[in-house]
Amino acid sequence: MDKKYVYEFNEGDETMRELLGGKGANLAGMSKLGMPVPYGFTITTEACNQYYEDNETINDGIKTQIMEYLDLLEKKSGKKLGDEANPLLVSVRSGARASMPGMMDTILNLGMNKTVAETVANLTNNERFAYDSYRRFIQMYSDVVMGLSKKRFEEIIDEVKAERGITDDLDLNAEDMKKLVELFKAFYKNELKSEFPEEPKEQLMGAIEAVFRSWNNPRAIYYRKMNDIPSSWGTAVNVQMMVFGNMGNDCGTGVAFTRNPSTGENKLYGEFLMNAQGEDVVAGIRTPQKIDQLKEVAPGAYDDFVAITKKLETHYRNMQDMEFTIEKGKLFMLQTRNGKRTAQAALKIACDMVDEGMITTDEALMMVEPKQLDSLLHPMFDADELKKAEPIATALPASPGAACGQIVFSAEEAIQEASRNHKVILVRLETSPEDIEGMHVSQGILTVRGGMTSHAAVVARGMGACCVSGCGDINMHDDEGYFEIDGVKYHRGDWISLDGSTGNIYGSAIKTVPASISGDFERFMNWADERRTLKVRTNADTPHDAKQAHEFGAQGIGLVRTEHMFFEGDRIKAVREMIVSKTAAQRRVALEKILPMQRSDFEGIYEAMQGLPVTIRYLDPPLHEFLPTNSYDITQLAKDMHIGLDELKSVISSLHEFNPMMGHRGCRLAISYPEIAEMQTTAVIQAALAVNERHPDWKIEPEIMIPLVGDVAELRYVKKVVCDVADKLIQESEFDMKYHVGTMIEIPRAALLADEIAKEAEFFSFGTNDLTQMTFGFSRDDAGGFLQDYYDKKIFEQDPFAHLDQRGVGKLVKMATELGRSTHPNIKLGICGEHGGDPASIEFCHRVGLNYVSCSPYRVPIARLAAAQAAIKFDK
Amino acid sequence: MDKKYVYEFNEGDETMRELLGGKGANLAGMSKLGMPVPYGFTITTEACNQYYEDNETINDGIKTQIMEYLDLLEKKSGKKLGDEANPLLVSVRSGARASMPGMMDTILNLGMNKTVAETVANLTNNERFAYDSYRRFIQMYSDVVMGLSKKRFEEIIDEVKAERGITDDLDLNAEDMKKLVELFKAFYKNELKSEFPEEPKEQLMGAIEAVFRSWNNPRAIYYRKMNDIPSSWGTAVNVQMMVFGNMGNDCGTGVAFTRNPSTGENKLYGEFLMNAQGEDVVAGIRTPQKIDQLKEVAPGAYDDFVAITKKLETHYRNMQDMEFTIEKGKLFMLQTRNGKRTAQAALKIACDMVDEGMITTDEALMMVEPKQLDSLLHPMFDADELKKAEPIATALPASPGAACGQIVFSAEEAIQEASRNHKVILVRLETSPEDIEGMHVSQGILTVRGGMTSHAAVVARGMGACCVSGCGDINMHDDEGYFEIDGVKYHRGDWISLDGSTGNIYGSAIKTVPASISGDFERFMNWADERRTLKVRTNADTPHDAKQAHEFGAQGIGLVRTEHMFFEGDRIKAVREMIVSKTAAQRRVALEKILPMQRSDFEGIYEAMQGLPVTIRYLDPPLHEFLPTNSYDITQLAKDMHIGLDELKSVISSLHEFNPMMGHRGCRLAISYPEIAEMQTTAVIQAALAVNERHPDWKIEPEIMIPLVGDVAELRYVKKVVCDVADKLIQESEFDMKYHVGTMIEIPRAALLADEIAKEAEFFSFGTNDLTQMTFGFSRDDAGGFLQDYYDKKIFEQDPFAHLDQRGVGKLVKMATELGRSTHPNIKLGICGEHGGDPASIEFCHRVGLNYVSCSPYRVPIARLAAAQAAIKFDK
Repeated sequence: MDKKYVYEFNEGDETMRELLGGKGANLAGMSKLGMPVPYGFTITTEACNQYYEDNETINDGIKTQIMEYLDLLEKKSGKKLGDEANPLLVSVRSGARASMPGMMDTILNLGMNKTVAETVANLTNNERFAYDSYRRFIQMYSDVVMGLSKKRFEEIIDEVKAERGITDDLDLNAEDMKKLVELFKAFYKNELKSEFPEEPKEQLMGAIEAVFRSWNNPRAIYYRKMNDIPSSWGTAVNVQMMVFGNMGNDCGTGVAFTRNPSTGENKLYGEFLMNAQGEDVVAGIRTPQKIDQLKEVAPGAYDDFVAITKKLETHYRNMQDMEFTIEKGKLFMLQTRNGKRTAQAALKIACDMVDEGMITTDEALMMVEPKQLDSLLHPMFDADELKKAEPIATALPASPGAACGQIVFSAEEAIQEASRNHKVILVRLETSPEDIEGMHVSQGILTVRGGMTSHAAVVARGMGACCVSGCGDINMHDDEGYFEIDGVKYHRGDWISLDGSTGNIYGSAIKTVPASISGDFERFMNWADERRTLKVRTNADTPHDAKQAHEFGAQGIGLVRTEHMFFEGDRIKAVREMIVSKTAAQRRVALEKILPMQRSDFEGIYEAMQGLPVTIRYLDPPLHEFLPTNSYDITQLAKDMHIGLDELKSVISSLHEFNPMMGHRGCRLAISYPEIAEMQTTAVIQAALAVNERHPDWKIEPEIMIPLVGDVAELRYVKKVVCDVADKLIQESEFDMKYHVGTMIEIPRAALLADEIAKEAEFFSFGTNDLTQMTFGFSRDDAGGFLQDYYDKKIFEQDPFAHLDQRGVGKLVKMATELGRSTHPNIKLGICGEHGGDPASIEFCHRVGLNYVSCSPYRVPIARLAAAQAAIKFDK
Repeated sequence: MDKKYVYEFNEGDETMRELLGGKGANLAGMSKLGMPVPYGFTITTEACNQYYEDNETINDGIKTQIMEYLDLLEKKSGKKLGDEANPLLVSVRSGARASMPGMMDTILNLGMNKTVAETVANLTNNERFAYDSYRRFIQMYSDVVMGLSKKRFEEIIDEVKAERGITDDLDLNAEDMKKLVELFKAFYKNELKSEFPEEPKEQLMGAIEAVFRSWNNPRAIYYRKMNDIPSSWGTAVNVQMMVFGNMGNDCGTGVAFTRNPSTGENKLYGEFLMNAQGEDVVAGIRTPQKIDQLKEVAPGAYDDFVAITKKLETHYRNMQDMEFTIEKGKLFMLQTRNGKRTAQAALKIACDMVDEGMITTDEALMMVEPKQLDSLLHPMFDADELKKAEPIATALPASPGAACGQIVFSAEEAIQEASRNHKVILVRLETSPEDIEGMHVSQGILTVRGGMTSHAAVVARGMGACCVSGCGDINMHDDEGYFEIDGVKYHRGDWISLDGSTGNIYGSAIKTVPASISGDFERFMNWADERRTLKVRTNADTPHDAKQAHEFGAQGIGLVRTEHMFFEGDRIKAVREMIVSKTAAQRRVALEKILPMQRSDFEGIYEAMQGLPVTIRYLDPPLHEFLPTNSYDITQLAKDMHIGLDELKSVISSLHEFNPMMGHRGCRLAISYPEIAEMQTTAVIQAALAVNERHPDWKIEPEIMIPLVGDVAELRYVKKVVCDVADKLIQESEFDMKYHVGTMIEIPRAALLADEIAKEAEFFSFGTNDLTQMTFGFSRDDAGGFLQDYYDKKIFEQDPFAHLDQRGVGKLVKMATELGRSTHPNIKLGICGEHGGDPASIEFCHRVGLNYVSCSPYRVPIARLAAAQAAIKFDK
């Protein structure tokens, strides 16, 4: 047992977050800076992990170290835990490596018992304070350590107040507090069949253990999952001498930020309460005062505090969020940490600090969380209205932004209502490609099924539309024109609101405020662009999306899904005719009809991108996705196509697949029906030639991407089809034009044999959505059925469709990168899966050495910043 | 152009098969041995590949070399191509590295033209012979080189015969032959608008090119696919001086085997025709004589031939299949090769040759094709009856053997009819697990859909039942009690016959003869067992299959699919009750009912295997596979279960998955419902304890296999569930028993992270079926829709579900093997996919260093031999 599990505050500093947790490291840091921090010590995160390894017990070695440090604390403070004459009271607080506010447990006033309470009453000459502190301790200890319901304690307080005919806690006098202590203890004994512990060391060990345990309480697990914090980190525990803000009117407590966390304004921002303990500020029973007013109430403490805040900001080179207590006029610092802030504030603070000469632009770039930028690009709810609203359900925050509109249940309705200038929310069991137009005109999309990477989510993110998905609480009765949540019916035409950033659903209209990009944004993003080496492209299927992405700074398109345009307007008819064709000749006739549409789409996209590179992926989904599924539509289609209903049904049934994800799709289609690839090549090349003619300086070189390749022979076959058509068209034109043929790497086998494939490919684009599915062996549509169990049982901590699985899927990406470059050293490598917009995955792409990432338009700014951060972190 | 593309026969020898093809190498070999081989030369397989590389032209360098060797041939033979005085006639024959009898083209009598024919007539004093040779040449050349239909030539012959009032070709006289020559040339000119080539060198180049081209004719491609011959091998071309068996009665031609190819008897076996060319023997117009009779007809040639056959067999150390021609009493050898033989003959010859001291046991083992053993284990058609039968369709030879029975269309019918001792063939669109009992009582299974690895195929192979699958020619009208092929209806109760080794379907009853294993078999297999290092286990789900496999020499069970027993009898009710359960408690009640059934199954299997190791895989398929699909059954089930129909429907619909292959199955089930794994563990451990009590010497140590693991955390979780139950049960018993927990490696990610997984696993079993699906990204159920296109377009040459894809999937297997052993050096490694019974895949497993393969019972002998051959080839 030589390992050191406990550190006195002045043994550490702020660089020791991993070991001491954020709070512990910063308490140590402030101590070192000579700031007034109450004495204390930190039990390390390693002790927490050891606790779990020892089957949730604190082993004797660690116990011994804690007792040694308790000794030291008692010596320094001149007080003793449980001492009759001069008792020490301590707080016991959690503190993980990453800030997890409110997620874990805190116990104040520990060390209280019958004798100590009396002593404190005498020493402070404040009986009410002593017993108030005592009853608070019993409450917290019973809840946190013993798991008794908080509610019953509140009820007891209410009963005492009722007896006394008062309503305000502040009106409870010393006698009342004493009575509460007795009632609480009686309740404790009745529930647990044992006395409330009087022995302070027993209390201390119980509290420490409770903090360790709280690392795995459900809300902490949930918070970790949301914020990608590994469960292996553990939490530290801080044991600190209590200082009291509630000992009288020369006492107080408060929280403050060195700058305004909402706007970023460089002005101390915060609030305080005199004669109160920290929890009172949070509880909101009394209205706190603005921090400025402290100058009048406690001028000495205020001046000390202001000086400290400046020192802290300069030292930490970041905006600080601090807690303090004033005991008998003397200031004590209880906490400092980098403050949470809005995106807008983050940008302003970063730019201001650069201007103030406090930080470098690299530091500024590292200061803003890339994901935060999202909120600048989407409408948000009016903050005041939002405060008043209560969600009727919460589901997955699938695509950010705020939306408010009237319920519709189909894409058709959405289009119809939108054409009348009605704002609508499209509510569906799940969406399909046929719904795209309806999704486009809706304010937001709400689905009952599907996860963060369902069709609705992916498409909505691409559009920048708000989407909440997978709301299992909804009982759908769309046939009858309503859905039900918790027994309440919401009818067609009723107003609802969606928050795509939280997943909240509201049963009423909430005002939204439009997105606003400040001047800081552009300046900041320019720094990012200068710093990063990874290029950022976008996934865009329409000229509209392409234009949007271009405005957001995309340096090209990494993925045009050609089939996403197949559903628009009348096109689907020609597409269906193509699918139902029995011979290549028939198919060619139908393809002739699709050709001009595809060509004009591609022209539009080339125009929107103004000469930036555009990678066009050939037809990918299984053909049956384009056929109707209900019998009315099928009958209609048969009529349209002049074929027998039975014949059509037989075609549809022949296209049925057991596992469509692993069926006849991608390049497999081009191999069975090369005429499709011929038509698509014609459209791409003709479009590029036409745009080049109009804009000779753009020098467009089409990039043609063959999907779902698993063997070089597949690529070779399709490439020949492409080149035969393309070369002929270019020869026939008056112009010279280069073009490039590459492939997706989205089948594990393609990654394993990338050296062979690279010989035929000018570029690889990692399709990490499919690659994740195949590598894990689960489909993202079906994984919802069991992934929750995986999170609950801590088998998975992250959604591999949201964050690239670097160990597994990433190993394939790395392998393919190395193999590909081994036979084709200057092959261009990119990623176009959903992961292309995820900061952690972007960092991985940078490390592996890809040339670009491609993501949905609204994630382009995020990717630009994430790429810059990766460069700062790894390119020294 | 320095490369040597042409070899004179005496420049090579029989080791040069790759370059010269089998025929060329053996002609060279015989020349070297001083045997009478007509002069000639071989154009290499590399020339063929070059021909394809040069866009199907023979380049000038190769042409020059051919002409040089023609020169040489003319000098040696003293004759000249096209010479008026002493013309050379040659044969041009294909000869690939592997024997592909009848697959490619041959041209005889090349060099014939008007002048030459006259000269030959004069020289031989046999005008009929000369013009007969000429017209034969025109026929062959027109067909092979120019692609004219053979049929029209036959019609012309028939017309001439009709004019002359004769019916037999032999009655055609010299004048008739001359007339045929003219008529043939006229037809040629009419069709091709050009004269039949008179210039012999032009004929020669055309013929050589035609042979190259024939490498890619459809029947050659088909043959290669059936026999796993890569298209990259190419064919060589042999140009050889003609010798004539049809120049008179002192001439003749014949084929012979050094031993009887049907029985293996050590006695020259063959037949010959006097005054005939080779094709006449094959064509069967005249009945050939037995080879013995040659002793009387041409005693000198016979004695020479017998001496040569003995020399050849000793030299090649294998039974030879030879062609010879006698020209004017002199024997010429035209070909020798290792003779094809029946399995029975193969075993006898191998054993006899060992006894004769001719070969070693290793050589004997290498002499038998492992797949051949199959035919010894299954019934076969009576050869005479089979000759008379014409197949009505041909589909996939899914499971070998011959079957004959009356048509039934459902498993129920099959059971009913079989109970009346009727022999039935079960005809289904496709089979499902519910059909197992019906499949068991049927003689054979015929399915309309599904490939070589469909449910029907896999299960049938497991049972050793005959199965023909994927017969798309069938129009199914089972509701009306018949199916249709080519407009002919086959009704319920009609007799049909299936050949599971060829895929042929016959519309009548054909007698079958039962399987017979001779004494040679056991002796031979003992040699194999002594030689091999790879252990051979079996995949068996029932005591019956286990017993069968044990008889075939299985050294344990590598895979018990626990769920395969779920459909038997009443069990499915309890299984469905388990699935429909809403709480773990309800589920446990249902599982309690399943427990005794599973336990007794496992006891039966342990008994059957008599102490050999048994690996039991836990529940794997998605649960919805066990639920009924048609509404009658659903209603019935709701009644049985006492739950509402809507409720049941909602459960069924909630279990629906888009891609069930990638859904909630395998260990994912055990993670969501650990109580299932608990029940299965209880069954396994209790069964093993009970059998160990009865047979203490067996010392059974259960092997528990967790399927579909993709992350070590999954295995860790389920392993804990297993161990908690198992340890408790063992402790409670009076006995000590070890058990082992391992995992399938069937998800690409598991292979990539095998080092981590190996820390928790005592063994890996590669599930190469799923691993192939995930690595290629196509499901075997759906791949049928496009794999045919892949074969047609030469993108794939092999079915990756039949033969392990060594480059891609094999790379993962190798990686997992190395990673696994890196952290767990003595981990046990095996394979239990369908590939475990495929000789090429077994060889791969040996090379990679696995400990065992596991295959269906009827493939156990094949695997034993293939493993021995791998050891002989690679363990020097």
